Amino acid sequence: MSDAGPAHGTDNGPLAVICGGGALPFAVADAVGKRGRRVVLFAIRGWADPQRVAAYPHHWASFGQFGWFCRVAQREGCRDVVLIGSVVRPAIWKIRPDFKTLRLLPRIVGLLRGGDNRLLKGVAAIFEEHGFRLIGAHQIAPDILMPEGPLGRERPTAGDQADIATALALLDATSPFDVGQAVVVADTRVLAIEAAEGTDRMLARIAELRRGGRIAPGSGKGVLVKAAKRGQDQRVDLPSIGPHTIEAAAGAGLAGIAVVAGSTIIAEAEATAAAADRERLFVIGVRDHTATR
Amino acid sequence: MSDAGPAHGTDNGPLAVICGGGALPFAVADAVGKRGRRVVLFAIRGWADPQRVAAYPHHWASFGQFGWFCRVAQREGCRDVVLIGSVVRPAIWKIRPDFKTLRLLPRIVGLLRGGDNRLLKGVAAIFEEHGFRLIGAHQIAPDILMPEGPLGRERPTAGDQADIATALALLDATSPFDVGQAVVVADTRVLAIEAAEGTDRMLARIAELRRGGRIAPGSGKGVLVKAAKRGQDQRVDLPSIGPHTIEAAAGAGLAGIAVVAGSTIIAEAEATAAAADRERLFVIGVRDHTATR
Repeated sequence: MSDAGPAHGTDNGPLAVICGGGALPFAVADAVGKRGRRVVLFAIRGWADPQRVAAYPHHWASFGQFGWFCRVAQREGCRDVVLIGSVVRPAIWKIRPDFKTLRLLPRIVGLLRGGDNRLLKGVAAIFEEHGFRLIGAHQIAPDILMPEGPLGRERPTAGDQADIATALALLDATSPFDVGQAVVVADTRVLAIEAAEGTDRMLARIAELRRGGRIAPGSGKGVLVKAAKRGQDQRVDLPSIGPHTIEAAAGAGLAGIAVVAGSTIIAEAEATAAAADRERLFVIGVRDHTATR
Repeated sequence: MSDAGPAHGTDNGPLAVICGGGALPFAVADAVGKRGRRVVLFAIRGWADPQRVAAYPHHWASFGQFGWFCRVAQREGCRDVVLIGSVVRPAIWKIRPDFKTLRLLPRIVGLLRGGDNRLLKGVAAIFEEHGFRLIGAHQIAPDILMPEGPLGRERPTAGDQADIATALALLDATSPFDVGQAVVVADTRVLAIEAAEGTDRMLARIAELRRGGRIAPGSGKGVLVKAAKRGQDQRVDLPSIGPHTIEAAAGAGLAGIAVVAGSTIIAEAEATAAAADRERLFVIGVRDHTATR
């Protein structure tokens, strides 16, 4: 957040928000809009929610239309760009590249090999080389970051705290491998580690393992812990939670959720707190004790 | 294997094989029987295959019958015990403890918290305290261990070799957390890390992610890599592969399987090699470069 400030303010023209799925892009757009800066959505077809997109100035975009994006964003006067919302990396032959994208394709193919972090860093570099400034949602809308401490009414027990510490240490160990921002630990036992499947599927797996008796019912409820990868480019990929994370964690029978304060986006904080109270789950922002992350 | 030798020979009485699910217990029983030593199976109800059990001297056993086991094993003259085959940790209230087990119950409850390694080490200690000697399948039947080098016809590419190295390093990093003996890496990207779900479910997940387009088809086939945890008690839990592992890996669209030579059990080596050739997967025993494991 040290580089937030006047340069990200209204004097820098409208903000281009490249908008994937979920509620996050609109939370960012609203937070920025409230400060009086114009926002233009570039909504990704198949991912962004058309009903919600309609409420903002917007253009519909597809993967592979980078030349088109450069022209339209320049015409709108946008220099600053935020990339936010969920997308799944597309198969390379599903991309219909325009001329500029076509020239970048060998480089993009190279980026599609390897982990998300590598891919996103490469995409960020491409934007910057074309005169845009890529800005993190956390820089431009710091009010959407999870603060330290509990969010709703519930609190972690001493046992939950121990599970959180184990989980953070494990995430730190896997971090160099550009994998998994999330694990579930119950009663000192690691139940699941996220890789390509994403947090929602990992939580669905816990629910299934419980139903199948593979996790004995007496073995503790467990905590979902999410943390940004070490060396992750926070401008393009921060862990996030929202009401649906609460529902998924409740479905998995967990006691609560812990995230790293200041580097986790919380979409719809009030709705998330309300869901946590309803499901009797704790949600807590913890300090990151690993200075290296 | 340094403690294999005459002490594990026929002069030490019959061998008690506590027998879970799958083909491994019978592979061990056959390997030991071939050397002229009598084998008595203690087949765990609900796990051991009744048809195959019938071909050996056997008793049917249930969780919680530790006092009964001690009496029957002593009557059979068994001092050496092998624990082998798949079981899922039972819920504590599903155990119907006999008197001796009842007295051990507080300790067992404590062991059921935490990872598999901790649980199995505790169980091993209980056997030893009651005058039995717990022996690893790899000690008593070294011919069921995976040797170094390829098993069937196929060979890993240079890209596969790089994925194998990444996977071994990742398994080394997660090893202190008593979790996961298996990962899948494709084209330098970590696709899945095993925790409580087991290898079969992890491979089923890869197949599902591919079908759902979550793993783009162009992103490389991938390698399943299994390795024993560092500090693991090899007498009670070695990674294992068999024909069904080949089928599951083929279903997940992988290029092959790598395991650590000398510390992985291979059940039905010939059938496994035949399945690998049929599915055109490589299976390779690699040297463990991490001396600490």
